[in-house]
Amino acid sequence: MIERDEIFRIRTRRTPGNLARVLAAIGEHGAHIGEIETLSITREYNVRDVTVIAPGDESIEAIRASIEALDGVELVEQSTDKVFAIHEGGKIAITPTVQIHNLQDVREVYTPGVARVSRAIAADESVADTHTWRGRTVAVVTDGSRVLGLGDVGPAAALPVMEGKALFYSTLVDLNAVPIVLDTNDPDEIVETVVRIAPGFGGIHLEDIATPGVYGIERALIEQLDIPVMHDDQHGTAVVLLAAVLSAARLEGRSIEDLTFGQIGLGAAGSAIAMLAAEFPFRRVIAFDPMEQAADRLDRSRVEARCDDDAIAWVMAEADVVALSTGRAGLLDPTLVRSGQIVFALSNPEPEITMEAARTAGAAIAADGSVVNNLLAYPGLFKGALMSRAPQITAAMRMAAAEALSELAPGDQLLPDPLDRSVHAAVAARVAETAARSR
Amino acid sequence: MIERDEIFRIRTRRTPGNLARVLAAIGEHGAHIGEIETLSITREYNVRDVTVIAPGDESIEAIRASIEALDGVELVEQSTDKVFAIHEGGKIAITPTVQIHNLQDVREVYTPGVARVSRAIAADESVADTHTWRGRTVAVVTDGSRVLGLGDVGPAAALPVMEGKALFYSTLVDLNAVPIVLDTNDPDEIVETVVRIAPGFGGIHLEDIATPGVYGIERALIEQLDIPVMHDDQHGTAVVLLAAVLSAARLEGRSIEDLTFGQIGLGAAGSAIAMLAAEFPFRRVIAFDPMEQAADRLDRSRVEARCDDDAIAWVMAEADVVALSTGRAGLLDPTLVRSGQIVFALSNPEPEITMEAARTAGAAIAADGSVVNNLLAYPGLFKGALMSRAPQITAAMRMAAAEALSELAPGDQLLPDPLDRSVHAAVAARVAETAARSR
Repeated sequence: MIERDEIFRIRTRRTPGNLARVLAAIGEHGAHIGEIETLSITREYNVRDVTVIAPGDESIEAIRASIEALDGVELVEQSTDKVFAIHEGGKIAITPTVQIHNLQDVREVYTPGVARVSRAIAADESVADTHTWRGRTVAVVTDGSRVLGLGDVGPAAALPVMEGKALFYSTLVDLNAVPIVLDTNDPDEIVETVVRIAPGFGGIHLEDIATPGVYGIERALIEQLDIPVMHDDQHGTAVVLLAAVLSAARLEGRSIEDLTFGQIGLGAAGSAIAMLAAEFPFRRVIAFDPMEQAADRLDRSRVEARCDDDAIAWVMAEADVVALSTGRAGLLDPTLVRSGQIVFALSNPEPEITMEAARTAGAAIAADGSVVNNLLAYPGLFKGALMSRAPQITAAMRMAAAEALSELAPGDQLLPDPLDRSVHAAVAARVAETAARSR
Repeated sequence: MIERDEIFRIRTRRTPGNLARVLAAIGEHGAHIGEIETLSITREYNVRDVTVIAPGDESIEAIRASIEALDGVELVEQSTDKVFAIHEGGKIAITPTVQIHNLQDVREVYTPGVARVSRAIAADESVADTHTWRGRTVAVVTDGSRVLGLGDVGPAAALPVMEGKALFYSTLVDLNAVPIVLDTNDPDEIVETVVRIAPGFGGIHLEDIATPGVYGIERALIEQLDIPVMHDDQHGTAVVLLAAVLSAARLEGRSIEDLTFGQIGLGAAGSAIAMLAAEFPFRRVIAFDPMEQAADRLDRSRVEARCDDDAIAWVMAEADVVALSTGRAGLLDPTLVRSGQIVFALSNPEPEITMEAARTAGAAIAADGSVVNNLLAYPGLFKGALMSRAPQITAAMRMAAAEALSELAPGDQLLPDPLDRSVHAAVAARVAETAARSR
């Protein structure tokens, strides 16, 4: 018997006990209740999406009939749970790029033919980059310790998220990405494990690993491996934000040489943003975080960072462009926003200041996290790095990606369409050129 | 400049120095010499396939002209190196199983939708088997320490071989198999690494890892993980050999209850063959290996094993069916073969006794390693195990696979066609049924 998820959208008259009667009716058919999302609460009616985990297809009909038979309850809509339906069996597959029709084919793709390729690699390991899949293959590695907004859900629960990343790699830039979800949270063990599996991969994409451990993990892997390693939550986000900043300056007719860039919040994304900003010719780069430890991860000769209570006001007073990534909804007092300022409030799902409030307070341009989609960066960055066989993803390559993304933004947009394959191809080409030039 | 492999088939008059002149002519164009395969040596001529690694496509023409200009040398044929051409870019790819057309699709396959699947897995890990790719995904793990006939070539050089296995998994049973090649030969580290990456996989296929380390690795992983783990060099080979033995008995009209099974050589394959044979109702199972250590890996209450010098003769005298897996070409003295005996001489590329010699000496049926293709076993075994969510691949499941394979052998054949997908589907179904029954 295969369980089936079905969503019933139910309008209940606002009488105590009405929802309970609905749930009881569902339970009588042996079905479980999943999520309950409240869509609206009015004086008279409540509308809710109730996800029902039914013991099989047959019981769905019976459940519907029972709901419809209830007084004071209206079944507005019924739909299968599309998210779960889409995820069934996973979102990616491994498929052959060579066809096998007969035993002669087997002799070429496997023994004895393959032995010649193995010997060629044993003699010159770079043959593995061209004559196996690894030259086009990235491991997407996590320990599941900081997954999306969910926190430490562990490796298995992180798998659909890593599969999502892999799906985008395949869809957008034809790279193979293998989800690797690790049953350890120890930074040393994570490094050790990735180093051991690295010979099968052309790059290592670190994802959703908790700070501060991930900083040392990324640093150690870059040191120990001669393939690109990048923590996307830091550098992917930084590339996309800087691209948006370049676009905003262009739209405002300002040269970044005249602008001061301010970063509020120095977590994974914030510290990477400040450090990448410092690579660009801004007049100054300044930053605030309440923790001195966070500020100390920066190169403080290039970023002026303060940690005192007044420093948010200082950043807002000094900076022409401000990015906020504090995780604290509504943190920013609108009275601190100056006329003509460019403001990016990145925290999800609620920003530090609403776009409307920022604009009302005088911001020339205001954008939130939904605009800064980091799907724009990592596919082209890794594609470019692998195309050029770059041993790492340097700051120059990240800058090149940000510049390309900004140039590709159409009209008055800050950023291009993240699902446009030509955008990713252009980013990859620019990253690859930059890598080639630096060698 | 991209190197290009080209094979020139060259007939040289048998005059000293002729081949050297050919190689010198090739070298003048800046090309390297790869393999030289001697196809025939006659009184007058030698024919050889010379693989030329040319610095680019243009030089191929020039090399041909130079060879054709040589006296006493004939260019018989010219072909691109198909094996290298096929391997270019690898043999497998990761492809999407869901299409992304717009940002609404992104919301379902990635954030925010995917968070619901993550939460469902965090609450009940078995959801990862149905709603991520892991329920259909096997890791093919090696350290590259015993690759094909090549020995310890290391992880990168093992990659095309593991990709070959993955290609067959995809082609034959629609499973995803991910090559994992490890940069360590330490058994404890191999176990530790596989345990750490295991949450992303539905099964662990161990391949081409040197004995004796691999025995402990397989045992530890079976103990520590609740997913199927199998060392293919042992158990895959054993399943196929036993299938062939069942077929041979059937063709000879003999019941295995009346037969004594003898195994000569107790390496990875040999010991697994003897132990799997002991699960079947043979009258007796006997074995020989010169090393007492090898014999002690067997359950000696079920397999009578001897290690003394006379024991080969003892096995040949007692056994009705004999399998040899010693790695020693020509080991078996034909005078030891008894009339009506069934003989499998498995060592590659040269068997312990040629089929012709065995038959001449009276063997009723004789077959070598080319017949016992272990491609027949592992795809159906893992497919069946994953279909039934079996926590391990038991002896009963391996027996079921052997029986199914034998029943599927057409006419007077010992085994079915390894490229027939319906064969693998039937094996998988039988394995899954057996797994389900035992729970």
